[in-house]
Amino acid sequence: MNSVISAELKLRRKRLQQAIRESEMDACLLSDTTNICYVAGMVFSGYAYIPADGEPLFFVKRPTGLLDENIIYIRKPEQMADFLAQRGVKMPNRLLLEGDELTFNEYVRIQAVFNPQKTGNATALMRSVRSIKTDYEISQFRISAQKQTMTYTAIKSCYKTGMTDVDFQIEIEYLMRKNGSLGIFRTFGANMDIYMGSILAGDNAQAASPFDFALGGAGQDVTLPIGANGTVLKEGTAVMVDMAGNYTPYITDMTRVFAVGKLTDKAYRAHEVAVQIQNEIEKAAHPGVCCADLYNLALKIVEKENLSDCFMGTKQQAKFVGHGIGLQINELPVLTGRSNEILQPNMVFALEPKFVIPKVGAVGIENSFRVTENGLEKLTVFEEAIIELT
Amino acid sequence: MNSVISAELKLRRKRLQQAIRESEMDACLLSDTTNICYVAGMVFSGYAYIPADGEPLFFVKRPTGLLDENIIYIRKPEQMADFLAQRGVKMPNRLLLEGDELTFNEYVRIQAVFNPQKTGNATALMRSVRSIKTDYEISQFRISAQKQTMTYTAIKSCYKTGMTDVDFQIEIEYLMRKNGSLGIFRTFGANMDIYMGSILAGDNAQAASPFDFALGGAGQDVTLPIGANGTVLKEGTAVMVDMAGNYTPYITDMTRVFAVGKLTDKAYRAHEVAVQIQNEIEKAAHPGVCCADLYNLALKIVEKENLSDCFMGTKQQAKFVGHGIGLQINELPVLTGRSNEILQPNMVFALEPKFVIPKVGAVGIENSFRVTENGLEKLTVFEEAIIELT
Repeated sequence: MNSVISAELKLRRKRLQQAIRESEMDACLLSDTTNICYVAGMVFSGYAYIPADGEPLFFVKRPTGLLDENIIYIRKPEQMADFLAQRGVKMPNRLLLEGDELTFNEYVRIQAVFNPQKTGNATALMRSVRSIKTDYEISQFRISAQKQTMTYTAIKSCYKTGMTDVDFQIEIEYLMRKNGSLGIFRTFGANMDIYMGSILAGDNAQAASPFDFALGGAGQDVTLPIGANGTVLKEGTAVMVDMAGNYTPYITDMTRVFAVGKLTDKAYRAHEVAVQIQNEIEKAAHPGVCCADLYNLALKIVEKENLSDCFMGTKQQAKFVGHGIGLQINELPVLTGRSNEILQPNMVFALEPKFVIPKVGAVGIENSFRVTENGLEKLTVFEEAIIELT
Repeated sequence: MNSVISAELKLRRKRLQQAIRESEMDACLLSDTTNICYVAGMVFSGYAYIPADGEPLFFVKRPTGLLDENIIYIRKPEQMADFLAQRGVKMPNRLLLEGDELTFNEYVRIQAVFNPQKTGNATALMRSVRSIKTDYEISQFRISAQKQTMTYTAIKSCYKTGMTDVDFQIEIEYLMRKNGSLGIFRTFGANMDIYMGSILAGDNAQAASPFDFALGGAGQDVTLPIGANGTVLKEGTAVMVDMAGNYTPYITDMTRVFAVGKLTDKAYRAHEVAVQIQNEIEKAAHPGVCCADLYNLALKIVEKENLSDCFMGTKQQAKFVGHGIGLQINELPVLTGRSNEILQPNMVFALEPKFVIPKVGAVGIENSFRVTENGLEKLTVFEEAIIELT
């Protein structure tokens, strides 16, 4: 492991250990892939045991062959207790476990291994710690943003007259992979199936989704109801491209709208309002601002412009206008009316005011922003007007 | 919903309800996306309540707009109890919950809603019920198999001298999507990240994986350690292609080996042994045979051929030679030494005897099979010898 990564992992663990102490717990046990990535800088099947103070222990089932003084090979979780006892490490009385990530059966088994007097939710703690990005993580976002912009610049060249949304998406996916997209697109929570992103054209943008994304789309199969559904890209159609910025493990999120010929006046106006919402939130946002206030600012503009019936969908409307990004596409904070999260420096989030115009499609904008000491920095810089496909 | 799907869903529910009664439970509550697909033929966010007898109830949070007499819209799980009380439905005393799929926090919340005297594991029950495929499901596998074969036939044309394994994979992915691949690739359990399948070339085939796939590969990033890693496809390299048969929701699984120029004699011999293992298992398998016996038959041939040190890996060796397939790539049964599962008609599984030859790469074969009344039917029919890339 190189020295940059080694220092980075130390910094992350220091922050995590501080959060463990602040929540008055003795240790945190992690096994979710994303959490393991975060604390170990790699994936293994097993458990990371992070005490409130001192060195972490990595209990590994797979892969074989890892060499590090903190790595202990195990076949089953019960061996963790044996190991701690042998080392004379005191068992944690107050233990954080991933209550929103471990399955019930895994959780119960691990609880029996440690038998703590008190348990807390490691999922919530990790999501909070991970929401403030390090300089290294921000450098990874910058690489993703740059490559995502390179892809978006070439999207126009993927279009051919008579294509369906699926045809168009396939060409964009191919371009993404050639530009270094890693393919995998991690999400938090159940019911968030997605493949490389979403293209929405015409009235498919109205299709309500079972998933918790901003917009829906019927998808190619009833068992995969998200995004493109085979809509032909004909004159007057808005084509919203929201394809993943998964060029490093840190995913940027960016949406641009393309038009086949000319759209309706309402579509252009709604697009301008979306850009205005973005710009107003960009001006209002800085450390100390509550995320709910930013969402309510968006709603205020939407109401003033008389576009409430098509903001963030029509038949089903998403109740947020932005979300944290990172190793997963849906991290903290969430810009929603119910949020009491406060912006802090080096939070990174996607802001995505969008409107769905019946018969035309979805319009609007999405960019990824970093919270700076006194405002926001836009990471995904690229033309924001509707781009005509020819 | 058309009448074929409607009859299909009735058949599935009848089988599931019989299994619920046989396990002496009153009802089963499902919310995992795959299980919802299975019982509802579509995806929704919410819960399917399947009583041991009578009509199922679908408690839906999202999407909006579903119309069916069995659909009840809810905002939170607690409303399920209110609804049952209003309808005068007796609360289940013995309830099956998805213990290996629900998170701990979700499970505890749902348990509090129903407060059953006894709970059972709906995950195990559903995996067992889903392991015996219906005629409709088998027809879906046949479509996937046919399209996967179409893709594999054209793989040779994706190759150009000097490519890396990643370049080659990108071309194959593009071909897959053009042939109708749905992109998404569902897996069961945590720690099973994968993107469209795996290509292993040269010594990358030796790289141990944290995931529970047959073989590993270092992948393109330490946080996504699976498959192709940028290995240049040079003379003497075996290139194992194990790309998804995800052309319908029912995934077929198929592996073929391609060679850049000539491989070593040992590589060709090991490949022939893999095909022999497949053929011997194909002869031995029929309803009533124990999966462990099939695995042990493979081991016996491997030992006789003196290839134990490279069977299913070198540094890390998978302890199975086949696995059920369906809506997920890793269903029941598993062909492993510890299995007590018995083959039954209309189980569908992938059989994948593979060897890793240091400095050369992985060789072997994988095909998808249906268990018939008296043997096996191969679903993925395509040339099985090593195919030379030119």
